Amino acid sequence: ASTMTLGEKEQQQEHKEEATGSGGAAAGGQKGKEVVSYWGVQPPKVTKEDGSEWKWHCFRPWETYQADLSIDLKKHHTPTTFLDKLAYWTVKSLRFPTDVFFQRRYGCRAMMLETVAAVPGMVGGMLLHCKSLRRFEPSGGWIKALLEEAENERMHLMTFMEVSKPRWYERALVFTVQGVFFNAYFLAYLASPKLAHRIVGYLEEEAIHSYTEFLKELDKGTIENVKAPAIAIDYWRLPADSTLRDVVMVVRADEAHHRDVNHFASDIHYKGQELKDSPAPIGYH
Amino acid sequence: ASTMTLGEKEQQQEHKEEATGSGGAAAGGQKGKEVVSYWGVQPPKVTKEDGSEWKWHCFRPWETYQADLSIDLKKHHTPTTFLDKLAYWTVKSLRFPTDVFFQRRYGCRAMMLETVAAVPGMVGGMLLHCKSLRRFEPSGGWIKALLEEAENERMHLMTFMEVSKPRWYERALVFTVQGVFFNAYFLAYLASPKLAHRIVGYLEEEAIHSYTEFLKELDKGTIENVKAPAIAIDYWRLPADSTLRDVVMVVRADEAHHRDVNHFASDIHYKGQELKDSPAPIGYH
Ligand SMILES: [Fe+2]
Ligand SMILES: [Fe+2]
Ligand SMILES: [Fe+2]
Ligand SMILES: [Fe+2]
Repeated sequence: ASTMTLGEKEQQQEHKEEATGSGGAAAGGQKGKEVVSYWGVQPPKVTKEDGSEWKWHCFRPWETYQADLSIDLKKHHTPTTFLDKLAYWTVKSLRFPTDVFFQRRYGCRAMMLETVAAVPGMVGGMLLHCKSLRRFEPSGGWIKALLEEAENERMHLMTFMEVSKPRWYERALVFTVQGVFFNAYFLAYLASPKLAHRIVGYLEEEAIHSYTEFLKELDKGTIENVKAPAIAIDYWRLPADSTLRDVVMVVRADEAHHRDVNHFASDIHYKGQELKDSPAPIGYH
Repeated sequence: ASTMTLGEKEQQQEHKEEATGSGGAAAGGQKGKEVVSYWGVQPPKVTKEDGSEWKWHCFRPWETYQADLSIDLKKHHTPTTFLDKLAYWTVKSLRFPTDVFFQRRYGCRAMMLETVAAVPGMVGGMLLHCKSLRRFEPSGGWIKALLEEAENERMHLMTFMEVSKPRWYERALVFTVQGVFFNAYFLAYLASPKLAHRIVGYLEEEAIHSYTEFLKELDKGTIENVKAPAIAIDYWRLPADSTLRDVVMVVRADEAHHRDVNHFASDIHYKGQELKDSPAPIGYH
């Protein structure tokens, strides 16, 4: 294909809806929603197991999984060192304003908190990626593990968005909180990955707690146990008749896995090692 | 498992080599290299197709692929708009000092440039991730696609590291260049993703060119065509007797794919759309 003549290339160009960029005729007058491209970059044709078309672009069949609901929800890291206590009390003190703001609106709370929960994995993964490049060193799989955590949290958000729609002042709040939290976590990770992972470990312990409260409200009937969103059924391979309760169960199991991974990462640093010295748990759900 | 008593948990604790963190006895006196953990986080036992143990932690069997060597290496985006020309001449002007610095040492050049090449995908992926969270919007798969590009470039680096070892002043140079390039690309992406992706598109065109030069030197015999590193054989599923030449061929094909993805992404922006409006090419190698 690399011996294609210029004439052939031009012909191919004309087949596009518009000669984007190269033709100088950007935007305007376009009918289709997708950009047909000279670059031959096609989104992959993906089908479900039953042969029907895969309708999600933000995740693919090979990223779906069945949550391990048998995970111990009660594991806890008792803070003893100064840094552990700092991490613990930082998280505990964030809990209070959150409780006041959301009260019993657990659907809304879940949605809002997932926008924050997806930040640490991305920050940690990015910093380890840059370090791996700078030091000419493999990462032991930790870059991937942390990025997977971030993806997983983003899927939690995509799920809860289907159940609870953000209002304008909530969007504004998320905007501000993300700005502050991203930078704070970035600096914390640079200063002490040990502390940063410990904080996430405790945040996940709180997340488990608030999803347990969410389940109680569902069981009491104060929150309606609606049908599970389609995206959740596909992502966690849930039965078609699953409900919001089933979704909260698998999300809570995910949080328990994140708790373990992050406390474990902090423990590695406590041993005076670097993450790359202990292979990462890839695909740990 | 969540009903485990405290006694049982303490017993489990004692089975660890040390009661990390929670016991207060951090580091020291440890024999094994890996942290055995209360958190039960085990790196997955992964085997190769032939049943032997998978020896890489930085990538897994399901991330390996056979490169598509039939890709058109000559595709080029003719710069017509001001932004395109800015992108084009930015890249061209970076070429000159690079040529002077490395001259014909293509192995070294490849290794050094891959430390830079892995930055844009990570920056773009991270920014789109944060945007997706802030706006409560799915990404159309672009977060994943850009992060995959970054992972792929990091694998290029891991491969060339086996062929050429960085010297101390090269390490220092990478340190500085990463600091500058990361921030410059970050700002460029914030200001104009259209420009940022176009720059990467042109960088990849240059990468194809310099890998073609690398192949010429290998064919002339001025660079020794050594055995392919084991990591490359596993990552690109190459035959066991592959050589450096085969590795450069597949890496060059990867660069051509990155070129297409990034020019395509820029084209989408030229249409006045956002990336999420056109599904991303996941697993496009
Ligand atoms: Fe979550
Ligand atoms: Fe979590
Ligand atoms: Fe590369
Ligand atoms: Fe590339």
